[in-house]
Amino acid sequence: MKKTSRPEIPRKAIYRLSIYLRCLQRLKANGIRTVASEALAAAAGVKSTQLRKDLTYFGQFGTRGLGYDVEQLGALISDVLGTTRLQPVILVGVGNLGSALLSYRGFQQEGFEIIAAFDQFPEKKRSRKFATPMLGMDKVEEFVRKHAVKMAVLTVPPEAAQEVVNTLIEIGITGILNFSTITLQVPEDVMVNNVNLAIELENLSYFVQQ
Amino acid sequence: MKKTSRPEIPRKAIYRLSIYLRCLQRLKANGIRTVASEALAAAAGVKSTQLRKDLTYFGQFGTRGLGYDVEQLGALISDVLGTTRLQPVILVGVGNLGSALLSYRGFQQEGFEIIAAFDQFPEKKRSRKFATPMLGMDKVEEFVRKHAVKMAVLTVPPEAAQEVVNTLIEIGITGILNFSTITLQVPEDVMVNNVNLAIELENLSYFVQQ
Repeated sequence: MKKTSRPEIPRKAIYRLSIYLRCLQRLKANGIRTVASEALAAAAGVKSTQLRKDLTYFGQFGTRGLGYDVEQLGALISDVLGTTRLQPVILVGVGNLGSALLSYRGFQQEGFEIIAAFDQFPEKKRSRKFATPMLGMDKVEEFVRKHAVKMAVLTVPPEAAQEVVNTLIEIGITGILNFSTITLQVPEDVMVNNVNLAIELENLSYFVQQ
Repeated sequence: MKKTSRPEIPRKAIYRLSIYLRCLQRLKANGIRTVASEALAAAAGVKSTQLRKDLTYFGQFGTRGLGYDVEQLGALISDVLGTTRLQPVILVGVGNLGSALLSYRGFQQEGFEIIAAFDQFPEKKRSRKFATPMLGMDKVEEFVRKHAVKMAVLTVPPEAAQEVVNTLIEIGITGILNFSTITLQVPEDVMVNNVNLAIELENLSYFVQQ
């Protein structure tokens, strides 16, 4: 299913592209039209050799002595990341964290729209505070296929996570933002990014004791 | 300021300790009292050689042929991570994401309590839906020193983030969970863990296009 037209970019480089994009957006907002690779690298917290290497994955864009065109490079990165249009995302599991994320308005600003939330007991979770439609898990297959959704935010309890993920993969989800505290088993063509707030805090907790 | 009594454990190993702890908690909840290193490693998604190596940082705990004592190993890891007692945390920046995190009740279950939230305009952000005290940034120094807070959750806009961090470090914060989208400059003895939900989604977005 891989398109051969797109170069294979390492996963860590994709993260850095997102950071470069943020830096470019700030530069643009400040009216800056060109940026030297050293300055962009410093803003992103990477070495300029790293930046130049990352940008060679999709061709050279700096003009020697002039640097990068802020708007052009931003548009290019956005295109590579697939965020030029609003991307549909579903959220599965409307517990404490799921509810918090549904009330967070920041995803849309960044190009992602949670177009529906799914829960085992949707009738209990519906509330006037959520604009997002809330549906039962029995509706997820029809919904995902109809709206060609590829990405899901997973906020179910750990004991349910693997089973829910198996279902999501079966119906065509290939990108999962996993907030549950278990390590998910997925096939190679499915990408899972883990966000575990408790683990990040525990990690800090260890270091602040030092 | 480093204690010499505690071995230096690599940062990635600390993350894995958190994952082992979650696995041990689930085993304990299921009434399982001992676990072989292979089984614990499989549950955590690591190789058993990795698990055994990580556990040697604080001594050997497996009994050959019997495996690890689930409760004892859990207690030990929890002690190393500093999560045996509820840890005080402050949250700085009560925007969309800050509000969402304040309404998330999950931190406390994991051993962290957000004991106060700070904002530039606290009077505008106070609401009956938050039980957490909401204070102005002019109160942060007194509060942090009085309650010996070491950890902060940072949810301020990117343009304010570095300045706020400089203040937090000055008053004794040494662990920062950074949700803002900029790369923070901090001294070596301060630990920053970055959580960027938009960047995680963008990263998935790239892969689901493949």
